Amino acid sequence: MKILVINAGSSSLKYQLIDMESEKMLCKGNCERIGMPAGVFTHKTADGKELVKKVNMLDHTAAFMQVKNALIDEEYGVIGNLEEVTAVGHRIVQGGSLFSESVLVDEKVIEGIESLIPLAPLHNKAHVQGIRACREVFGPEVPEVVVFDTAFHSTMPPKAYMFNVPYEYYEKYAVRRYGFHGTSHRYVSARCAQLMGRDIAETKMITCHLGNGSSITAVDGGKCIDTSMGLTPLDGFMMGTRTGTLDPSVVTFIMEKEHLTPREMDEVLNKKSGLLGISGVSSDDRDVTAANQAGNPRAKLAQDILEYQIAKFIGGYMVALGGCNAIVFTAGLGENQASHRMAVGKYLSYLGVKIDEALNEEMIHGREGKISAPDSSIEVYVIPTNEELVIARDTRDLVEKL
Amino acid sequence: MKILVINAGSSSLKYQLIDMESEKMLCKGNCERIGMPAGVFTHKTADGKELVKKVNMLDHTAAFMQVKNALIDEEYGVIGNLEEVTAVGHRIVQGGSLFSESVLVDEKVIEGIESLIPLAPLHNKAHVQGIRACREVFGPEVPEVVVFDTAFHSTMPPKAYMFNVPYEYYEKYAVRRYGFHGTSHRYVSARCAQLMGRDIAETKMITCHLGNGSSITAVDGGKCIDTSMGLTPLDGFMMGTRTGTLDPSVVTFIMEKEHLTPREMDEVLNKKSGLLGISGVSSDDRDVTAANQAGNPRAKLAQDILEYQIAKFIGGYMVALGGCNAIVFTAGLGENQASHRMAVGKYLSYLGVKIDEALNEEMIHGREGKISAPDSSIEVYVIPTNEELVIARDTRDLVEKL
Repeated sequence: MKILVINAGSSSLKYQLIDMESEKMLCKGNCERIGMPAGVFTHKTADGKELVKKVNMLDHTAAFMQVKNALIDEEYGVIGNLEEVTAVGHRIVQGGSLFSESVLVDEKVIEGIESLIPLAPLHNKAHVQGIRACREVFGPEVPEVVVFDTAFHSTMPPKAYMFNVPYEYYEKYAVRRYGFHGTSHRYVSARCAQLMGRDIAETKMITCHLGNGSSITAVDGGKCIDTSMGLTPLDGFMMGTRTGTLDPSVVTFIMEKEHLTPREMDEVLNKKSGLLGISGVSSDDRDVTAANQAGNPRAKLAQDILEYQIAKFIGGYMVALGGCNAIVFTAGLGENQASHRMAVGKYLSYLGVKIDEALNEEMIHGREGKISAPDSSIEVYVIPTNEELVIARDTRDLVEKL
Repeated sequence: MKILVINAGSSSLKYQLIDMESEKMLCKGNCERIGMPAGVFTHKTADGKELVKKVNMLDHTAAFMQVKNALIDEEYGVIGNLEEVTAVGHRIVQGGSLFSESVLVDEKVIEGIESLIPLAPLHNKAHVQGIRACREVFGPEVPEVVVFDTAFHSTMPPKAYMFNVPYEYYEKYAVRRYGFHGTSHRYVSARCAQLMGRDIAETKMITCHLGNGSSITAVDGGKCIDTSMGLTPLDGFMMGTRTGTLDPSVVTFIMEKEHLTPREMDEVLNKKSGLLGISGVSSDDRDVTAANQAGNPRAKLAQDILEYQIAKFIGGYMVALGGCNAIVFTAGLGENQASHRMAVGKYLSYLGVKIDEALNEEMIHGREGKISAPDSSIEVYVIPTNEELVIARDTRDLVEKL
């Protein structure tokens, strides 16, 4: 069985074809600048062939035509004919309170995703375009499944998901914490239990997805009980360009001083803040690390804040969980920036957490394993995330029941 | 030596006369509705006499005239003549980055406090009015001292006080975490070290000032290293009517949906949120407790959130401190609502924290003492706060050097 995994954005469409016997990626690619001039289509196969095409794609349907053609292309293709694609799994950012697990797509599901557009205007609108375009190109006989970033977090109790604003906004606009990166937190927490050789139901974990966008989740017995992202992926702690949680008076104070509309302020908070805003160097932690090493004090400050805020979040979630067996680092920064993992470990050393320096340095570039010392009070792991595989597995599971 | 302690608000003026030999309050009172119709002046003596006068007070000078007359009143007075007032200590909310300790008032100091008005428009403006009016009524020969709510927090490192917004706002508008209730955190942390019989320099404490406004501070060796309030007293965790820290996208989302200006949104976040906003019952935790006990689910939710957020903050600050010897509860809610202290203790029980149920129930209505069991891993105290006494002591110390 082969499953096509789709991540449709407003002007981009990422895909991966996964063989479910081996759980290996066969090919992956990206349609960039959909509906804009100077479009680019990129396609890479697992055995190293690469196709880059400058091609304008009018809409998501045109993008899917590129994907289809590439999959069965004589030179760059990985399958003989389209029937080999058993099903398609779509990543959906916002499932709101409607979707607590992955489901097969039908008209009602599409309407549900559409009804959540006010909560994730850019993402959910693009996802619906992706689902419809996929059906047009691959035909209605290929089942589609939707997998939600928020679903893993649907087990949070109200004390974790309610914001301290007037209750009417929860009733009127569904303002609450949803959390994101759920597919990643679900994958790494399940994988961590495997690596520990323990039943996940008996574990307490804190999973740190640290990328350009970052979130930390408290996972109790395999279930999310709290997470750092909120109504949108802006909440939490310092990210590449995002603030994370904030004194709300800072928001209104700056808006008033700078005469900004809510949308303009949103832009500042989402695009100009975080590592970039503090360091003034870059939103990419690798650049900020280099600047820090070269003696830039604002780069150092940005990284100090990042590490301090991650450590404090872990401390808060330890209390939420009532203790913790394992801490997991994943995603671009979590998988590769060993110095931050070490710094976080040092903050936790008073609890008996010990990160092994050599193991920590080793566990980069997609390597998976434990980085804590044998006598560490809490096990610490680096686990490369694989959201596409989770989407493919959920798709397979639902399709097999058909 | 007798010192008059003043807390001047925009339309109110609270005072206390303290005898520094005994450190006891001789009398205290409040001028309400200054500059408005239907003003009220209240004056109480330590031996139980009480004066309530309906009197309109045009401005702070008129209010100080009431205070002066009451102090030397034949029936309600506590001193024979005004010369007995050696000095006046003023509470100032915002000392910004200018004032890291209490100082004697001169024109330059007044200008400094005035220069911080943009950061605390209502408070600092009223404080300056209070200082000038006091001088008019008591004469320039009576030394005045200013004691800042923010001063105790001036030892925070940048990683704790910087917000993750563009650095330019820090440079342009001094947007950073200042923290408040500093005088209270300073008092209870010093007092806690005394009660523990330890040198404060060798302690790590978390002090929880829980009132209508609330803040938690991490105190390392007697010095603040982090605190929950921020640019304004809105930041932190759930309060009577305030949100505490928030997903900033919630702020812009609600503003856009409800067409609110920054000031209107500020009003929602400061006056209609927190315990009141969630419970729909009251901003007073005693009312919310009663509603909770009567089965109101939103009252229960509000209290669950409050306890959960306090516990998570303590967890974060334990990491910031690298462990903790003592947790202190103070202020109206912290001194009296034993059920919340017990709930917070339960969240921390995985660390070996044990609150003694009987001691906890006993320690209310101004009683001071330890509420943790002898074998608790962290000592837990209830310490009634006394900001006026700290202001009076600072005033004495500075005046004695003259």
